[in-house]
Amino acid sequence: MNLDAAMAAAVEQSDGVKGRTYPNPPVGAVILDRDGEIAGVGATEPPGGPHAEILALRRAGERAVGGTAVVTLEPCNHFGRTPPCVDALLAAGVTDVAFAVADPNPVAAGGAARLAESGVRVHPGVLSDAVAGGPLREWLHKQRTGMPHVTWKFATSVDGRSAAADGTSQWITSEAARADVHRRRATADAIIVGTGTVFVDDPALTARRSDGSLADHQPLRVVVGMREISPDATVLNDDSRTMVIRTRDPHEVIKALSDRTDVLLEGGPTLAGAFLRAGVIDRILAYVAPILLGGPITAVDDVGVFSIAQAQRWRYDGVQPVGPDVLLSLTRN
Amino acid sequence: MNLDAAMAAAVEQSDGVKGRTYPNPPVGAVILDRDGEIAGVGATEPPGGPHAEILALRRAGERAVGGTAVVTLEPCNHFGRTPPCVDALLAAGVTDVAFAVADPNPVAAGGAARLAESGVRVHPGVLSDAVAGGPLREWLHKQRTGMPHVTWKFATSVDGRSAAADGTSQWITSEAARADVHRRRATADAIIVGTGTVFVDDPALTARRSDGSLADHQPLRVVVGMREISPDATVLNDDSRTMVIRTRDPHEVIKALSDRTDVLLEGGPTLAGAFLRAGVIDRILAYVAPILLGGPITAVDDVGVFSIAQAQRWRYDGVQPVGPDVLLSLTRN
Repeated sequence: MNLDAAMAAAVEQSDGVKGRTYPNPPVGAVILDRDGEIAGVGATEPPGGPHAEILALRRAGERAVGGTAVVTLEPCNHFGRTPPCVDALLAAGVTDVAFAVADPNPVAAGGAARLAESGVRVHPGVLSDAVAGGPLREWLHKQRTGMPHVTWKFATSVDGRSAAADGTSQWITSEAARADVHRRRATADAIIVGTGTVFVDDPALTARRSDGSLADHQPLRVVVGMREISPDATVLNDDSRTMVIRTRDPHEVIKALSDRTDVLLEGGPTLAGAFLRAGVIDRILAYVAPILLGGPITAVDDVGVFSIAQAQRWRYDGVQPVGPDVLLSLTRN
Repeated sequence: MNLDAAMAAAVEQSDGVKGRTYPNPPVGAVILDRDGEIAGVGATEPPGGPHAEILALRRAGERAVGGTAVVTLEPCNHFGRTPPCVDALLAAGVTDVAFAVADPNPVAAGGAARLAESGVRVHPGVLSDAVAGGPLREWLHKQRTGMPHVTWKFATSVDGRSAAADGTSQWITSEAARADVHRRRATADAIIVGTGTVFVDDPALTARRSDGSLADHQPLRVVVGMREISPDATVLNDDSRTMVIRTRDPHEVIKALSDRTDVLLEGGPTLAGAFLRAGVIDRILAYVAPILLGGPITAVDDVGVFSIAQAQRWRYDGVQPVGPDVLLSLTRN
């Protein structure tokens, strides 16, 4: 197996633990034996548990000797809650280490240099774009900015409506699109909605499997706004924790969530507009259904643009079918 | 060369004449010699000129003997302005004839049966979906319904706006998207706009090449509405012909264009809404720019939907990047 294929397997490992490792990065690792066969795989355990490399090395056992470690993030070189992964790799006797993304954390970095000094062949940058834009995207954003990564997700008709004229909106998008949203919720740290959405839709804001059961990981539910919500609101049930933030200022909301990494905004037209105007959204996911609705209820109202020259300019970083719908993913320009 | 590859070459031929053959279908033909090499290609000439098969046979000459004719449409079996193509194919000595789509016209049909009776091996249905949904789509629609095929094309932001709050809209989409629109205009029979668009934008509604020069084929320009337009309006210039239809009823417009095959609607929110409510649109092309505008100016207003259960339900038949934008193509469900 070549390094790209092994890295793809490591990415798959990391995808499986996304959402459960923060504040640590969701890392995936694969150990290839000296014949290039997979000898062990691993992914970061929840905080306090072993890192991906350690698990993969344990599973590989003696087959790691003379082999290659393939990791989505540069192996760490510091004592945190666990000893440095670099020590474990050297002790295991691998001759090669490949990684996708260098560790931006100055405390943990230096792993690649120490491996090279110890005579290990180091292969940096393998599938780096796929990893930096994929499983490590939110964590890297947090390392760089100190703030959580915010994704605004919305469902819309082709003509930009989030509901029909009478306010009905169940369902604009397909079951496949809704299942995709639940998978994303299950990897998120927190979901934000406004009090308006709680009043109108009374959502549970949980991550559910297609059979309706609760996913293993539930994001923190965050309700934003000045209005009092009913103590009977479904969002306050025991399926997950809920935080109520009495503000209309997106900056205050982000600050209150500053210990979070991957935040999903599922607000309606007003809240989404406020976040867009405040410039605190890092990614947009638009689930576009092949339907037309017309009428007054748009997916977002005022985004702070008066003239075309002031348009909020983004860039597509993904366009894919989801069942009968299309998912447009946009990132900052 | 296999039949699929030869048919793809025939499709390419037909694409090159799209818009110039109506009311005849834009057909492409390829003659393979007995070794399977391309011996001649052809595409329908403007009405009165030879059909695709005849041109391809002429170019193949003696190499057609023992060869295969590959045609996007079942060869015709009747005397119209030109003699039956079936006679020419038999006279040329081809042993095989492949086609994509059967001729729906009862007068011209029967070609495949006559070829088979004459001992020719007939291969129907080669790449039939690509041809029926591609170069022959509009012509087949006309044959089936007696009405022109109407495509509504619009440019929009991701949030469904066709202009910023102050009315400015140049340019929502990229140069690449605008060039794509001009290519489509150059293959259309007619372009419809409302008097409102003429007042606000004063468009030329011509098909232009990227260097700004006029394309060889110009569609008929159609202006719809009750208001008088200025004799100085650019749409009345000499670059193409222009028809003014004093009505607000889409059915009347379509009726006035009943001798046309491929009609492009480029109307604003009101006209597009009227056509959508009237159910006379067969395809939607949405050029979606990765920008957000917000505000009151949506790409379409009232489409006759009050509640979500009444949503106009379409189906994506194409999703592709066009420069930095995305083109969503939708067809009736």
